[in-house]
Amino acid sequence: MKEVAIIGIGMTKWGELWEKSIRDLKTEAALKCLDDAGVDKVDAITVGAMSGGLFNGQEHLASIVADYLGQRFIPSTRVESACASGGLAVKTAYMEIASGLSECVLAVGVEKMTDVDGGEATFALASAADQDFEAFHGITFPGLYAMMAMAHMDKYGTTLEQLAQPSVKNHYNGSMNSHAQFPFKVSLEQVMNSTTVADPLRLLHCSPITDGSAAVLLAPVEVAKKMNKPYAVILGIGHSTDTIALCQRKSLCQLPAVEEAAQRALKMAGKTIKDIDFAEVHDCFTIAEIMVMEALGVVEPGQGGPACMDGLTALDGKFPINPSGGLKSKGHPVGATGVAQIYETVSQLRGEAGDRQIKNARLGLTQNMGGSGASSITHILEARS
Amino acid sequence: MKEVAIIGIGMTKWGELWEKSIRDLKTEAALKCLDDAGVDKVDAITVGAMSGGLFNGQEHLASIVADYLGQRFIPSTRVESACASGGLAVKTAYMEIASGLSECVLAVGVEKMTDVDGGEATFALASAADQDFEAFHGITFPGLYAMMAMAHMDKYGTTLEQLAQPSVKNHYNGSMNSHAQFPFKVSLEQVMNSTTVADPLRLLHCSPITDGSAAVLLAPVEVAKKMNKPYAVILGIGHSTDTIALCQRKSLCQLPAVEEAAQRALKMAGKTIKDIDFAEVHDCFTIAEIMVMEALGVVEPGQGGPACMDGLTALDGKFPINPSGGLKSKGHPVGATGVAQIYETVSQLRGEAGDRQIKNARLGLTQNMGGSGASSITHILEARS
Repeated sequence: MKEVAIIGIGMTKWGELWEKSIRDLKTEAALKCLDDAGVDKVDAITVGAMSGGLFNGQEHLASIVADYLGQRFIPSTRVESACASGGLAVKTAYMEIASGLSECVLAVGVEKMTDVDGGEATFALASAADQDFEAFHGITFPGLYAMMAMAHMDKYGTTLEQLAQPSVKNHYNGSMNSHAQFPFKVSLEQVMNSTTVADPLRLLHCSPITDGSAAVLLAPVEVAKKMNKPYAVILGIGHSTDTIALCQRKSLCQLPAVEEAAQRALKMAGKTIKDIDFAEVHDCFTIAEIMVMEALGVVEPGQGGPACMDGLTALDGKFPINPSGGLKSKGHPVGATGVAQIYETVSQLRGEAGDRQIKNARLGLTQNMGGSGASSITHILEARS
Repeated sequence: MKEVAIIGIGMTKWGELWEKSIRDLKTEAALKCLDDAGVDKVDAITVGAMSGGLFNGQEHLASIVADYLGQRFIPSTRVESACASGGLAVKTAYMEIASGLSECVLAVGVEKMTDVDGGEATFALASAADQDFEAFHGITFPGLYAMMAMAHMDKYGTTLEQLAQPSVKNHYNGSMNSHAQFPFKVSLEQVMNSTTVADPLRLLHCSPITDGSAAVLLAPVEVAKKMNKPYAVILGIGHSTDTIALCQRKSLCQLPAVEEAAQRALKMAGKTIKDIDFAEVHDCFTIAEIMVMEALGVVEPGQGGPACMDGLTALDGKFPINPSGGLKSKGHPVGATGVAQIYETVSQLRGEAGDRQIKNARLGLTQNMGGSGASSITHILEARS
């Protein structure tokens, strides 16, 4: 199989960016990425976006990226897997290269979520759940994850303090990330006393509504070797799906698609989770980070909560998680999130993460999730120079 | 490069199917396809759909297909390129195989368009155009293609009779297609006297709003060889993009992305357009079929209209186009159209097209277009047995 490298990364500031359109955002991230790689022409583009239709009245997003980069007539593909659309864009870019169809491929993730009002945004996000059997009846994503949190607390004794801790950690990490939407620290008390959204989840357990974009450039490793600077190689890719409706799962407090995707990626990479130095994971709600830790095998089922309190996943812990600040602090423009996970991982592997730099970061894992775990995509990246 | 075959095909009846949900449609087409191939387990799925969000309040469509086929946990990817989403699903399935990630991959195209009212459907379809610079200001697709038709008539002298003829031919072909939404013949007079939609386009120049799904199964050619029945091999794939806004093109009566995609596919196949026996093309409006003929190089620019009157593209002509009945008669569930083009082409290559069978059909071409030509995907398929 062809070895594919990531030779460039770029992203916009994330936040409530009323002065920038979806077109502006993805073009800015893409241009920053091409600048980083020192490349001005690509052979193909992939675009991850969840719902250009519901957020922006704009589908057909892939053609716009090619056009506004001045690269009309190249192949450009938009992919969607709800909040895992960004990870899917990177996987699809890999396939463009590994299939032999293209050589140098740009993967862009984007979402412009603040041009609609809160109710419309909630409706758009709920289209990642089962419309007929979930969303139509009124449940929204905070409600779905609240049920998962309740089940986890009931089965494993996970506490409210444990549920709050990933937010504290991720805001601490994000306070050092200039791209983050909310680059400030929060205390355990602030998280636990914030407004209730869907019991037991409070405002500071939840990732925000965000505008933003991120881009990464993929090329065969032979191209990367000629660049005379550090790069990352994609060692493994895993992609898996599950029932879209939470009620059709065997358990509310397991994420089998996350486990399957991780196992596929680790197998392809020839690694185990013990080999991994750090991970960027999908903390759309703090309970998600806890359940993902368990699904990845970082800790045993039920041990995610206690492990958060032990500092296992802190920047200086044994298995740092979300050095970028995660979805919680950095923000969650849904289609961009999976690409930004790759951005952070490559930054860490190149030793360019500044105050957030993890020591001896050689092997990183990303985990990008759609809906309440109905899809998951994992990449494993290795540092090379 | 790995040689990939199409080893199974399936589709639903197309039409105004109020008793079937989007979930029902794609599952039915997928099951028919698996039955046709005699396969009950696939390694991955791709789904082409334009706007599950705006038509159905349902994104995350790929997970649903895997789940309802009883194949949870496999990778499943939704792609979108407006009305070219189906062709893109087939291309992406090819990449899953050629990249080495998967072996047997199901490509499903679907759109369920009649659950919203006419205005909402028009808004959803207009999201394939430039929202900021076209749709927001009120133009819809009949208007965009009407401008293209006017420009073509002005530049080349294309007549109203010529503009009507593809509809007559496609309805004749579709009258023999049991899957078609409108399986009946129309006369030149009926087309020319039908209600004006956007001058010069009349109702019978326009493809309809349709519910429907189609699916095809891809596998390495070694798998196909063991099946002891005729199959088709993908010789070439071409994918190209252009400005999303029609007003930013150099000419209103050319489709350079269609030309580029076809040239890429022909080059990959090692063929010229003269080698091709027949084609399924994107006749969303009759002017589109005329302009596509010119872009593919079937006739010189400006000669599309006269060629329609000469019978060049009739079932028994030298270069049959749209033996299925095309989008005009068969219907146009936008995400399904590109997959159904492959369905028809494989049917023809297997010699199973019944009354519509083209004699000596060995090499077929499909051309699936997004928007007013902002994306195009071409496949070239060869008969094998």
